[in-house]
Amino acid sequence: MPDALITRTPSAYEYPLLIKNLLFCPVVDTPDQEIVYRDHRFSYRDLRQRVARLANALTDLGVKRGDTVAVMDWDSNRYLECFFAVPMIGAVLHTINVRLSPEQILYTIDHAEDDVLLVNSEFLPILEQIRGRMDTVKSFVLLNDEPTVPESHIPFSGEYEALLAAASDQFNFADFDENTRATTFYTTGTTGMPKGVYFSHRQLVLHTLGVLAVLGSSVSHGGFNRQDVYMPITPMFHVHAWGLPYVATMLGVKQVYPGRYLPDHLLELIDREKVTFSHCVPTILHMLLKHPHAGRMDLSGWKVIIGGAAMSRALCLDALQRGIDLFTGYGMSETCPILTISHLTPEMLELSPEEQAVIRCKTGRSLPLVDLKIVDSARQEQPRDGKSTGEIVVRAPWLTQGYLKDHKASERLWEGGYLHTGDVAVRDEQGYVKITDRTKDVLKVSGEWVSSLELEDIIAHHPGVAEVAVIGQPDEKWGERPLALVVAKPDNPVTEKELTHLVREYADKGVVTKQVVLLKVKLVEAIDKTSVGKVNKVALREKYL
Amino acid sequence: MPDALITRTPSAYEYPLLIKNLLFCPVVDTPDQEIVYRDHRFSYRDLRQRVARLANALTDLGVKRGDTVAVMDWDSNRYLECFFAVPMIGAVLHTINVRLSPEQILYTIDHAEDDVLLVNSEFLPILEQIRGRMDTVKSFVLLNDEPTVPESHIPFSGEYEALLAAASDQFNFADFDENTRATTFYTTGTTGMPKGVYFSHRQLVLHTLGVLAVLGSSVSHGGFNRQDVYMPITPMFHVHAWGLPYVATMLGVKQVYPGRYLPDHLLELIDREKVTFSHCVPTILHMLLKHPHAGRMDLSGWKVIIGGAAMSRALCLDALQRGIDLFTGYGMSETCPILTISHLTPEMLELSPEEQAVIRCKTGRSLPLVDLKIVDSARQEQPRDGKSTGEIVVRAPWLTQGYLKDHKASERLWEGGYLHTGDVAVRDEQGYVKITDRTKDVLKVSGEWVSSLELEDIIAHHPGVAEVAVIGQPDEKWGERPLALVVAKPDNPVTEKELTHLVREYADKGVVTKQVVLLKVKLVEAIDKTSVGKVNKVALREKYL
Repeated sequence: MPDALITRTPSAYEYPLLIKNLLFCPVVDTPDQEIVYRDHRFSYRDLRQRVARLANALTDLGVKRGDTVAVMDWDSNRYLECFFAVPMIGAVLHTINVRLSPEQILYTIDHAEDDVLLVNSEFLPILEQIRGRMDTVKSFVLLNDEPTVPESHIPFSGEYEALLAAASDQFNFADFDENTRATTFYTTGTTGMPKGVYFSHRQLVLHTLGVLAVLGSSVSHGGFNRQDVYMPITPMFHVHAWGLPYVATMLGVKQVYPGRYLPDHLLELIDREKVTFSHCVPTILHMLLKHPHAGRMDLSGWKVIIGGAAMSRALCLDALQRGIDLFTGYGMSETCPILTISHLTPEMLELSPEEQAVIRCKTGRSLPLVDLKIVDSARQEQPRDGKSTGEIVVRAPWLTQGYLKDHKASERLWEGGYLHTGDVAVRDEQGYVKITDRTKDVLKVSGEWVSSLELEDIIAHHPGVAEVAVIGQPDEKWGERPLALVVAKPDNPVTEKELTHLVREYADKGVVTKQVVLLKVKLVEAIDKTSVGKVNKVALREKYL
Repeated sequence: MPDALITRTPSAYEYPLLIKNLLFCPVVDTPDQEIVYRDHRFSYRDLRQRVARLANALTDLGVKRGDTVAVMDWDSNRYLECFFAVPMIGAVLHTINVRLSPEQILYTIDHAEDDVLLVNSEFLPILEQIRGRMDTVKSFVLLNDEPTVPESHIPFSGEYEALLAAASDQFNFADFDENTRATTFYTTGTTGMPKGVYFSHRQLVLHTLGVLAVLGSSVSHGGFNRQDVYMPITPMFHVHAWGLPYVATMLGVKQVYPGRYLPDHLLELIDREKVTFSHCVPTILHMLLKHPHAGRMDLSGWKVIIGGAAMSRALCLDALQRGIDLFTGYGMSETCPILTISHLTPEMLELSPEEQAVIRCKTGRSLPLVDLKIVDSARQEQPRDGKSTGEIVVRAPWLTQGYLKDHKASERLWEGGYLHTGDVAVRDEQGYVKITDRTKDVLKVSGEWVSSLELEDIIAHHPGVAEVAVIGQPDEKWGERPLALVVAKPDNPVTEKELTHLVREYADKGVVTKQVVLLKVKLVEAIDKTSVGKVNKVALREKYL
């Protein structure tokens, strides 16, 4: 077992914050409420029974407190059951990022010292490829959505549904120390091997309560309330789908799990199951809104948290015009993840869509209990003036205590007692935080800081631009020059000249610093992304510099 | 200092749940929002500065971590400032029940070992009477609402506003162990001397989050949301005004503190300040609704949690007819206090007012993280059938760990690892709990259990009844006979015969057990209450049996 697990048993009067309490002592107990996956409709009553069955099945496979159970699956009710059953028996749930390369997947399985692996039949080719080199995995469980069991050389202990059917639906989930590790997963860094982060029962319970405090108390927009229907569109393997499945379960709302993210399937589910609350990255939302079926659908009233990358105002306006209530959330793998939400005040909701979009695209205000600071290089807090930039550093009850088995990187992450996000931001008088850059992505042009995000936002506004990423090109004279890599829209192609002209206009108006006129534009076929859909600037630099 | 305080300093990555976080990291940061008391309007910015000033003033008076600071005041912004400043410097806030007798007040001050006492000038006569016999109090601070400083022999260290004005508005509130005691106060038992209960920072933070999770996520009724205006009408000295001032502060809403509970003043404040969220005992609501001014006011949309005593359906219907959105909460001094809230489901909100009143008068469903069980005398959980009665026992993250310096009573309270409420209840299939009696108040009539609450509810329905309390009269033949003590309405006096006839009708219909026909009715002038307005059955037994 990597790193030390705390396993002290709490004394009689203590009430540890355990994941089982989210399931057994929810905000509203709704035993008949639905959980939908493919053709299956489970009730919350089923969920509790299946969690107990899974706990028994895993125990029968020899899983003990402190062991690690890994899962390779798309979003499903099974995954939700693992979200509960694995930590509830005191084991650690490793949610494997199935979009990593087979070598990286192997690295994370070995690094996390996984004991049991639950794997969707779709990933058998990957598994066959790496199984011979796994160091720690003792048992395999098959997750199968197909009518027949696929052929395989893997010595499966059984198929998930068969194991559950054979197990008792009674399990006595004991109390243990709330600081016991519950989950681990790997950040999809753009350099080097993935780094493991980890969260305790206490942290996941407090994240759930903190998110609920801010989403729940918002009535006029962006609320997550008891009457909502929930469907995640950020994967369950990535930061527990932002922790929202725990929030949804605690609220007792209907939940819809979409499997893979195929646009027509997602739209069909939204329509058929009357989904009202989701979260996704801008790329996915863009893909959904551009889909031919979306035009025929009424998406008004759909509440969507956007995160993982900056949302462009154009996308925001497009969504607002369709009546979608979207707003930004901010966080990262290291932060469980949610730190801020860009809810609008009642006064702001009276503003024009254009003005609202400016606020909705900000990363928002910090969640309760989140001590978020924007500090300069001397660690001094910057004024809340909407102008003074600095790095976001944070303390909160739900931050990873470090990187798994990487003491040095952990020390850097927590330097000075605050977690360093590496994001550069400003905060205005009302507390709204706006990311201006990653510390790594700020350009130094002719001695002045130039924000690549700001440039990207200006360029994205052009009607002929489909996608844009700005990187810094080393330059002898100017230090760095901004290089915009642009994917033009096929039906309305933009020229490089139009874009340099557009940027110059903004500089002339004083909206951005003069140095931006040094911009170079390059039209490209596509922009490289990481496995979770973020622009991969490291890959872009390698390719174009 | 009574009992042991845990004072371990948390390590770098730990994030202790401290009361300062409710103030500094709220759900919404609203520095310009108002806090109203008398002619004063403070902002949240003022609140933070005044909390820092108070922390400095107390520190200057010699208050150290682990000391106890006691307050005798009506509901005011000062009290709110004490709710934060005292625990935030690591001291314990003792909220003195000013309705106790001077001898009982002296007992609690000595028992809690108070070091400093903040006292409203109104209570100087009580203080003069007991000061010579106080064992531990070293300093006194005067709280004064009058234009002049009253004459007094008490050696005051200063007047509250003067001390604050002289103190710095900067204070570095350090982190410490979240299990540090934050508050203590005394239950107003109807027998013997008051018993002290106590709560830690962690417990108060979790109570705030738990209450917010259930109130915040309710949109269609009974929500406590960011647009509300809050005014407590259960005193701040009694279970931290049910913890709602902490919830209100964390939500960043406007707060109104009413001082003493004078009906015309309360109604004026509701009207003038546009109060939308309150909590009170049935007696107060009854008093407000019967007040001549209430008839002229539009109270629709006012959300009110009723607790502390059973609400009659008649009162509930009266309130519903005026558009008041009221519902029951349940808890006790030992439980911080809130354990359940009787929110209705969307389907229930479609029911007639009469049908809704039945549900709204139940004590409701348990809060998140509250593990509430109804058990029989063999500690077996009773089925959720709406019929099987048993005692409510509970585990939750916010229960007193015992009674202060009373090991024996603490052991009884926590027998078997659950806190024993002494309340008898049933729970239905949807999880709604309905108190049927106090364990002490169930009558054994001719070998059958008879619920005094049920009888009280039937009798209270009679239009000629102003108030009723049922006690058990020892009887040689029947064991006990129910004795109803009834205050008749002056304009519509009821006779004893009418009431025995009414109860017989219910028995004939099979609604209640046959044994109720043994009821005796006695018309009385008034019904004795405890200091917090609950029917004092012990006093009634002494008087009438």
